Amino acid sequence: MKPLELLEQSLQKRVLVELKGGHSFRGVLEAYDQHLNLILSHAEEVVGEQVTPHAGLTLLRGDSVVFISP
Amino acid sequence: MKPLELLEQSLQKRVLVELKGGHSFRGVLEAYDQHLNLILSHAEEVVGEQVTPHAGLTLLRGDSVVFISP
Amino acid sequence: MKPLELLEQSLQKRVLVELKGGHSFRGVLEAYDQHLNLILSHAEEVVGEQVTPHAGLTLLRGDSVVFISP
Amino acid sequence: MKPLELLEQSLQKRVLVELKGGHSFRGVLEAYDQHLNLILSHAEEVVGEQVTPHAGLTLLRGDSVVFISP
Amino acid sequence: MKPLELLEQSLQKRVLVELKGGHSFRGVLEAYDQHLNLILSHAEEVVGEQVTPHAGLTLLRGDSVVFISP
Amino acid sequence: MKPLELLEQSLQKRVLVELKGGHSFRGVLEAYDQHLNLILSHAEEVVGEQVTPHAGLTLLRGDSVVFISP
Amino acid sequence: MKPLELLEQSLQKRVLVELKGGHSFRGVLEAYDQHLNLILSHAEEVVGEQVTPHAGLTLLRGDSVVFISP
Repeated sequence: MKPLELLEQSLQKRVLVELKGGHSFRGVLEAYDQHLNLILSHAEEVVGEQVTPHAGLTLLRGDSVVFISP
Repeated sequence: MKPLELLEQSLQKRVLVELKGGHSFRGVLEAYDQHLNLILSHAEEVVGEQVTPHAGLTLLRGDSVVFISP
Repeated sequence: MKPLELLEQSLQKRVLVELKGGHSFRGVLEAYDQHLNLILSHAEEVVGEQVTPHAGLTLLRGDSVVFISP
Repeated sequence: MKPLELLEQSLQKRVLVELKGGHSFRGVLEAYDQHLNLILSHAEEVVGEQVTPHAGLTLLRGDSVVFISP
Repeated sequence: MKPLELLEQSLQKRVLVELKGGHSFRGVLEAYDQHLNLILSHAEEVVGEQVTPHAGLTLLRGDSVVFISP
Repeated sequence: MKPLELLEQSLQKRVLVELKGGHSFRGVLEAYDQHLNLILSHAEEVVGEQVTPHAGLTLLRGDSVVFISP
Repeated sequence: MKPLELLEQSLQKRVLVELKGGHSFRGVLEAYDQHLNLILSHAEEVVGEQVTPHAGLTLLRGDSVVFISP
């Protein structure tokens, strides 16, 4: 298995995405590309204790991704 | 769907764009390219509690984008 | 419209350019290239409350640009 | 031996991965690619004294990796 | 005019170069390349209030340049 | 001599490697590639006064290397 | 003259090299390449007031270089 194949298996599943600079997101993975650009639905932004829901679809820039976890 | 197609669907709609370094912008997405360079109209810059309206069109450099949300 | 076309339309007009690291400049856009390298005339550097005028033409490195606004 | 061959030898073994920004992970290396993108199973995130287990498979972005150790 | 042509016109003239991380230099521009690598003669390094003269020729790495001004 | 040839001469010898972000390692250089990815055996991680031995082989990502010294 | 030709002229001469993150080195330039990877002999690392001599040859990664001065 190559690392990016994990993203294929994670489509339509809930993921946790940690971004550079202290942001992280939870949501359902709707799409990805080879740069690790991601689209989440039902996204919640988590900064420390603060959770902010984002309506619609959120695009996360691959360059900012640190790790992706179920 | 590929992640950047979300931008095509977001044209002429309001988006929230988080940039590296603590800046974020709200505005109407007028244009984008594959580097995630973006143009917003009716842009408001948000730094903490402070909201600064920007007249005309604002160009955000793709390299600085962390995430884009409705 | 592609994002960089906005720069073509902004030639000879006043712009605000925010740079990484807290610098920003106001001035008249005299030239640009596809890396977002910019030349401003009548430039003023703004760091917090402090405004420093720069005589002649100022070259801003595209890699440092965060956003460009009228 | 080339450096990345060490990853081939580390498959299915426990590794410690230090990431930029103070995150580190312990887990079993399940996959890697030439960008140093990694997949860990049984991953535990370690930030200072705090250990957070991650169920399933965790994808670490190669660009964030500082070092990998047994 | 393209932005880098400004450097051609600035040869043998005094420039101010701001670098990432708080360093800046004043000196006479002796050479440049398309990466914005620069050579200054009669260079003075300015960090806050402190001015340090550098004898001979100083090479500034283009990747570190933020802006160049007369 | 080209800079990377120094690494060829340093194989099987003890080196000190300084990484971005304040980490440094001492160990025996076992392998390298042109990106400056390195493998050390008998590695010790040094952060300030604290020395942590790492068993087995440690892979240091070239992108994080600041300098390498005997 | 192109900027990197200065390095050719500086071979076997003493240079001061400022690196990102607050490190700087003094030493004799023994080799360089087009990425600004450098080898110094008789190197001394300078961090604030603290000077640490490095025996043998020290490899500085070009990507970390801010400026090079006699």
